[in-house]
Amino acid sequence: MEKQLYEIGMIGLGTMGRNIVLNMADHGVSVAGYDKDPGKGPILLSEGAGKQLAATDNLKAFIAMLRPPRVVMLLVAPAKVVDLVLPDLLPVLDKGDLVIDAGNSFFKDTDARGKLCQEKGVHFFGMGVSGGEAGARHGPSMMPGGPRESYERVRPVLESIAAKVGGEPCVAYVGAGSAGHYVKMVHNGIEYGLMQLISESYDLLKRGLGLSNDELSATYKRWDAGALNSFLIEITATVLLKNDDKGTGRLIDKVKDAARQKGTGKWTSQDALDLQVPAPTLDLAVCQRDLSGQLEARAAVHAALGGPSPSFGGDRKAFVDQVGHALFAAMVLTYAQGLDLLRHASTAYNYGLDLAEVAKIWRGGCIIRAALLEDIRKAYAARADLPSLLADANIAGKLKARAGDLRAVVRTMAELGLPAPGLMASLSYLDGLRSGWLPTNLIQAQRDFFGAHTYERTDQPGTFHSHWGEA
Amino acid sequence: MEKQLYEIGMIGLGTMGRNIVLNMADHGVSVAGYDKDPGKGPILLSEGAGKQLAATDNLKAFIAMLRPPRVVMLLVAPAKVVDLVLPDLLPVLDKGDLVIDAGNSFFKDTDARGKLCQEKGVHFFGMGVSGGEAGARHGPSMMPGGPRESYERVRPVLESIAAKVGGEPCVAYVGAGSAGHYVKMVHNGIEYGLMQLISESYDLLKRGLGLSNDELSATYKRWDAGALNSFLIEITATVLLKNDDKGTGRLIDKVKDAARQKGTGKWTSQDALDLQVPAPTLDLAVCQRDLSGQLEARAAVHAALGGPSPSFGGDRKAFVDQVGHALFAAMVLTYAQGLDLLRHASTAYNYGLDLAEVAKIWRGGCIIRAALLEDIRKAYAARADLPSLLADANIAGKLKARAGDLRAVVRTMAELGLPAPGLMASLSYLDGLRSGWLPTNLIQAQRDFFGAHTYERTDQPGTFHSHWGEA
Repeated sequence: MEKQLYEIGMIGLGTMGRNIVLNMADHGVSVAGYDKDPGKGPILLSEGAGKQLAATDNLKAFIAMLRPPRVVMLLVAPAKVVDLVLPDLLPVLDKGDLVIDAGNSFFKDTDARGKLCQEKGVHFFGMGVSGGEAGARHGPSMMPGGPRESYERVRPVLESIAAKVGGEPCVAYVGAGSAGHYVKMVHNGIEYGLMQLISESYDLLKRGLGLSNDELSATYKRWDAGALNSFLIEITATVLLKNDDKGTGRLIDKVKDAARQKGTGKWTSQDALDLQVPAPTLDLAVCQRDLSGQLEARAAVHAALGGPSPSFGGDRKAFVDQVGHALFAAMVLTYAQGLDLLRHASTAYNYGLDLAEVAKIWRGGCIIRAALLEDIRKAYAARADLPSLLADANIAGKLKARAGDLRAVVRTMAELGLPAPGLMASLSYLDGLRSGWLPTNLIQAQRDFFGAHTYERTDQPGTFHSHWGEA
Repeated sequence: MEKQLYEIGMIGLGTMGRNIVLNMADHGVSVAGYDKDPGKGPILLSEGAGKQLAATDNLKAFIAMLRPPRVVMLLVAPAKVVDLVLPDLLPVLDKGDLVIDAGNSFFKDTDARGKLCQEKGVHFFGMGVSGGEAGARHGPSMMPGGPRESYERVRPVLESIAAKVGGEPCVAYVGAGSAGHYVKMVHNGIEYGLMQLISESYDLLKRGLGLSNDELSATYKRWDAGALNSFLIEITATVLLKNDDKGTGRLIDKVKDAARQKGTGKWTSQDALDLQVPAPTLDLAVCQRDLSGQLEARAAVHAALGGPSPSFGGDRKAFVDQVGHALFAAMVLTYAQGLDLLRHASTAYNYGLDLAEVAKIWRGGCIIRAALLEDIRKAYAARADLPSLLADANIAGKLKARAGDLRAVVRTMAELGLPAPGLMASLSYLDGLRSGWLPTNLIQAQRDFFGAHTYERTDQPGTFHSHWGEA
C-alpha cells in the first residue's frame, strides 16, 4: 500500500494558517499541517472534515508526509518565531525543497533567512499575504518574492486560492530576494495611511457636522458605491451599524480611542526615511496611533488647553460631498507615496518590481483593495518608470478635480480644531510636488551659514560655500 | 629636564577639531593634537601661534605627550571613522584614561563603543557638540554622557570653553551611556523642524505676500527682537541680505532648492517611531528635505498639475504679524515633540535625563538656542515629570494666545497652494493632544473587523473581539 503524500505542508495552524489550508483543500490541494501545540491539529481536522488533510505535532512525521521536492509554508506569529522554526526545519529538509514564509516578516530578516536556506540548498520565499482571516479562507492577495524558478512550482496552488478580479488571480511573482515581504510591508503602510484618513473624515462628519452613526454609515455606503469604492470604506459603513452586545447603542461609541499597531507601518516609515523617499501620510498615520496611546499627556494637555468645540456654519449636505472628494484625493496621494517608495526600493534592493503587476494583485483580496487600483495599474502599465503616480494624466485629472475640496476640508478642520494630520500631510505632499519651487533654498543657505555644508546654485554647476555673515 | 605633558589630546584636526582646540587654548588649557593627515597639524600650530599647543601625525608620539590619566577627545567626520580610530587607540591607552567622542555618532554605536572601551578599563564619553564652526571656536553647547565619575575630571575644561548664558556654562553632564549623543541627536531633530517651519514662513511671506528680500530680512530681524528671539531667526535675517558674489542680486535667490542632510534628523524620526513617540513636525521636516531632492518627480508633477499662483487678498501688515505668532506656536510644538521624545528615551534607555538641565544647556551656543528655552527650562524645573510641555501653564498660555494665528496661517497656505507640512503637522499635533477624544476608535474597530486584533472598551476593563460584520 502506497503511503499518501501531501502536496503542501503548513507550519503554524493558528486562524490564518488553518484558513489558508482550508482554502487550499477547497481547491483540491492536499495539505499536511504541523503545529507544536497539539491542540491545533484537531481543530483543523474538524473544520476541514472530508477534505484531503492531515495534521500532526511531530515535525519529523510532518516532513515524511510531504511529497518531494517539498513545499513547506510557514504561518507563525509573531514573525520572529521563524527564527526558532528554521533551525529545526532545515536539517530535516532536502536540497531542492521550498520554504515559504507567509507571515509578516521584516524584509531584512527575510534576506538573512534566504541566505541561510540557500547555504543548505533549500529555496526560500518571503510571501506577503493580505486579506485578514476572511481573505485567507476565501481568497487573499498574495505577494511572493524570492527565486523566480521556484515560483512556477507553487503558481497553480497560489493562483487557485487567491482572490480573483475579473477572473484574474490576485497573486504574481513580485521580485527577487525579500521583494514579497517588502511589497506587503508597503501595502500595510498604505493601509495605515488610508485608515487614518478615513478616521479623520469620520471625525469631521461626526464632531464637525454632527452626523449620527446611521447617517455616517449611509454616507460611507454611498461613497463605497462611487469613486471611493474600497474594502476599508465598505467595512467602515458596516462597523458603524454594529450594536453594542454589552450595553445599549452602537458598539463603535464604546471602543477606546487608543490605537495599537504591530509594527509594519513603522517599518515602512523607517525604511522610507532610510531611502530618503517622502511618505508623509504614512508617517503621520503611525504618529497619530502613537499619539492616541499617550493617554496621560492627552489628559494633561486637554486640561491645560481645552478641547475643540466645533461649530460648522456652512451647507452641510454640500460639504459632506466635499469631504468625500477630499478623502478620495488624499487616498490617491497615499497610494502615490507607497508606490513611489516601491519604485525607489526596487532600485535600492534590486527587486525588479513591476508596479503595474503590484497594483493588479492589490485590486482584490487585500485590505487596501479599491477601484482606484485599476487606474493605478493602468498608469504604470502605460509607463513603468513613471516618476510619480501624480504625473499620470488620468490620475492628475482626478486630483485636479478634487484638490479644491481637499483644501476646503483642511481649512475647515484647522478652523474647527479637529486634528487632521493625514489629510494635511496629503495636501502638503501634493503642493510640495507640484510647487515648481520650494523654499528649501533657505534651508541650504542656513546649513552653509552655520555648518559650512555647502550649496548648489541654480545658474551654474558646482558646489559652493559662502561667508553668509559678511555683507 | 622634564618633558611638558599636555592636559588634553585632540584626535581629528579638521575645522571643528581645530576650533575646539583653539578655544581650549584661549582658556589656558594645553592641548596636543593628532591627525593622520600631516597637513592638518601645521594649520593648527599656525592658527594657534603663541598658545600651549602641539601637533603630530604620529599616534604614539601623541599619546606620549599627554598627562596621565589621559583625556583624549575625538572629532572625526564622518562619525563612523571612530570605529577605525578606536582599534589603533585602545592598545596605546592605559586603564583609567578617558576617551570622548565629540562627533555626531549614532547613539547605538556609542553604546557599543562604550562597552568596547570598558573591557579595556578605558572610560568612554559620547558628547554632543553644537554650534557649528563658530560655536566650536567661541563657545559651543556641549552634551556629554557616559560614566558620571569621569565628568568631574573634564568639567573645568568643558565649562571654560562652553557658551555662557547669564554667566552659566552651556554644558552639563546629561546622563549615562549614550545619553550625550542621544540628546544631541534630538537637538538636531528639533533643528530640522525649526528650519522647515522658518522656510514655510519665508515661502508664505515671499510667494504668498510678495515681500522682497529686504522686507523679509527686516521682518525676521523684528521677530528676532521679540518672542521669536533665536539663532535660526537671527541668521535668516542675515542670510537674506547676502549679495551674490558671482552675479547680481541676492545670493539666496541663486541657491538651489534641493536640501541635503547628514542623517541625524532621520535617526531622530526613526527612533521616535521605535519608541512610539509622535514627532510629526520633525518627521515631516526630514520628509520635505527628501521631497525637495526628488527633482524628476517634482518636474513631472509640476508639468501635470501646475504650480500655485498665490493671491493673498487680506490685510498684509496684520497678516505678517499673524505669521510670526503662528511660527512661534509651531516652534513651541516642535520643542515639545523633541522633549517628549527625550522623556520617553530617558526611561527606555535608562539615561536619567534632567530635562530642565537639557533646556538650560541649549539656551546658548547651539543651533536651536532661543529665548523660549528659558520658559522650557522653567517648565521642567517646576515639574520634572511633566507629561507634555504643553501641559505647563505658562507654555499653554503662550500657545493659547497664538493658536488662532496658527490656524489662520495653515488655512491661508492651504488656500494659496503653498506646501506647509511643518506648520500643518504642528497644528495637528496640538489638536491631537488637546482633543480629549480621537477618532482612533474607528481604527481599532476596523483592525478588529479584518484582523481580529481586539479592542478595549471605554466603560469596562478587558480586551474584546466582535464579529463586526454581523448585525
